[in-house]
Amino acid sequence: MNDDFSVWRDRPVVVTGGAGFIGSNLARRLAELGAQVTVIDRMLAGYGANMFNLALPANPISLLESDIGAENAISDAVTGAHTIFNFAGQTSHMDSMQQPLEDMALNQIANLRFIELVRRVNPGARLVFSSTRQFYGPPQYLPVDEKHPLNPPDINGIHKLAAEQYHMLYARVYGMRVTALRLTNVYGPRMRIRDAKQTFLGIWVRHVIENSAFEVWGGTQRRDFSYVEDLVEAALRTAMADATIGHVYNIGGHPSLTLDELAELLVQVGGSGSFIRKEFPAERKKIDIGDYYCDDSAFRAAANWQPRFDMAEGLRRTLAYYRANKHFYL
Amino acid sequence: MNDDFSVWRDRPVVVTGGAGFIGSNLARRLAELGAQVTVIDRMLAGYGANMFNLALPANPISLLESDIGAENAISDAVTGAHTIFNFAGQTSHMDSMQQPLEDMALNQIANLRFIELVRRVNPGARLVFSSTRQFYGPPQYLPVDEKHPLNPPDINGIHKLAAEQYHMLYARVYGMRVTALRLTNVYGPRMRIRDAKQTFLGIWVRHVIENSAFEVWGGTQRRDFSYVEDLVEAALRTAMADATIGHVYNIGGHPSLTLDELAELLVQVGGSGSFIRKEFPAERKKIDIGDYYCDDSAFRAAANWQPRFDMAEGLRRTLAYYRANKHFYL
Repeated sequence: MNDDFSVWRDRPVVVTGGAGFIGSNLARRLAELGAQVTVIDRMLAGYGANMFNLALPANPISLLESDIGAENAISDAVTGAHTIFNFAGQTSHMDSMQQPLEDMALNQIANLRFIELVRRVNPGARLVFSSTRQFYGPPQYLPVDEKHPLNPPDINGIHKLAAEQYHMLYARVYGMRVTALRLTNVYGPRMRIRDAKQTFLGIWVRHVIENSAFEVWGGTQRRDFSYVEDLVEAALRTAMADATIGHVYNIGGHPSLTLDELAELLVQVGGSGSFIRKEFPAERKKIDIGDYYCDDSAFRAAANWQPRFDMAEGLRRTLAYYRANKHFYL
Repeated sequence: MNDDFSVWRDRPVVVTGGAGFIGSNLARRLAELGAQVTVIDRMLAGYGANMFNLALPANPISLLESDIGAENAISDAVTGAHTIFNFAGQTSHMDSMQQPLEDMALNQIANLRFIELVRRVNPGARLVFSSTRQFYGPPQYLPVDEKHPLNPPDINGIHKLAAEQYHMLYARVYGMRVTALRLTNVYGPRMRIRDAKQTFLGIWVRHVIENSAFEVWGGTQRRDFSYVEDLVEAALRTAMADATIGHVYNIGGHPSLTLDELAELLVQVGGSGSFIRKEFPAERKKIDIGDYYCDDSAFRAAANWQPRFDMAEGLRRTLAYYRANKHFYL
């Protein structure tokens, strides 16, 4: 097991979606480690991309403003990469039901074009794909492991599953060096907090730093959470562990909390804000999945990873970041 | 359980892919039963559509030459339908690997546009979708039931799975009256026999009626088979059985045979032709699934169906059809 992060020094690395929440944290960490980082991001308004996410990195980061499906625009960067973190994509459950074809273009077609490009120009690259626990649908048992049946609860889930399947198919058929990570609720600095489009925790954080009241829908649902710094380390360790090639893994982190417990913890850690409980809106309930938490023991063993931040510490760091930088996110 | 096929008399019915193999058999049977049948078919060269498939029906069949994703062209027909059999689609394993975006357009995007249209203009229609066993991938156990993990072995399988998931999602979220049938190897009159693009049995049949030698790749793989007349009855019974709404079912038929056994039976029934065994081509082996046969007991119970034709009789009828009509299929 390679624990030596100095391998990243001078390594050419591509991070797609690298101006977004998780991608930017990953790109910055890679820059800190001395990697030659190229971010590919559409910078589309209304999603997670934010120029401030890439402000003042430890070392220079190149930004290529492009869709990941635009082969000509990104071919050179992809050709030269040692490692590719394909972290582009949107998670928009309600939007996807209202605009299913747009969701397909963003989350599926772009990924097919991208993996085809990698196959053609750089089939030996190490490729880590950010997938999602979302397409397990309502859990049939808990904790959910990777053998759990797949039952996408919305259009977005169908397209994300297809995107993951492309990646794993290309690993199998073409011998490409791919690992897919099924993420759960990731939170932390650089997430979108203007609204709940990226994660419900974003809008909660906004209310806490603005000392106002946020809504908790339902409240008894259990969820598990990954603090973004832990997740970035998981992504790096994935790329460093050849044992993970060809596999799909759940990644969790902190043990599950009910949304009520999380809301209480957030208000307590923040020392401001409050919350009110609301019934689940009917439209939303149709595609909600109930309780979810994962079994990520396979990943922990294969990648030699464990989370370092507990929930209170993760929330504390998150709130501190937004108290200092909120104007860039509102 | 409704066994009275007179319900189809004067009923407006749409069959997509209705100039193709299975769709045309279904459309003709519906016309025989007195239904007002509209076929929607792109009539694309190189796939299953064949004008002769719709020649001289028992009662008139309307043909709407259109992609199922072309909303304006097909909206009126869809609006007025009591029952819709969505049987359009291609099965082209190798093509899909070489032209993945084209496969997506044909097998997934068109279906998303179609189900969206049905939702908007005729959400109460009875809808039967022809899905496939293909995305189970290499069986992890036999016989394969509907709980078997989903593991598409090729691009075509990824897109067909997404198309099925759209249908079942719309059943769940919008209360649409959908059933999906996962078909296995279907054979019989009106299949493509010019080449092996639609089914390997097609090209075998061609060689037998031309008294030449066909190739059996591998030979020890077990597969199960549905004779098309049995499958048409299964589709009708599905639409007639409300208990099947919201469900996905395997459909098999005749117990499994190895490809060697099938080749021998075909040559014996045909009284002509011969076969030679070949090693599996390497490109093809990468996406082959090994043995497959399904457990379709859930469907048999829910739809009150069982196959009526054994394999020898199905092959006999198939050969008789192509001996009489081969010029329309070569």
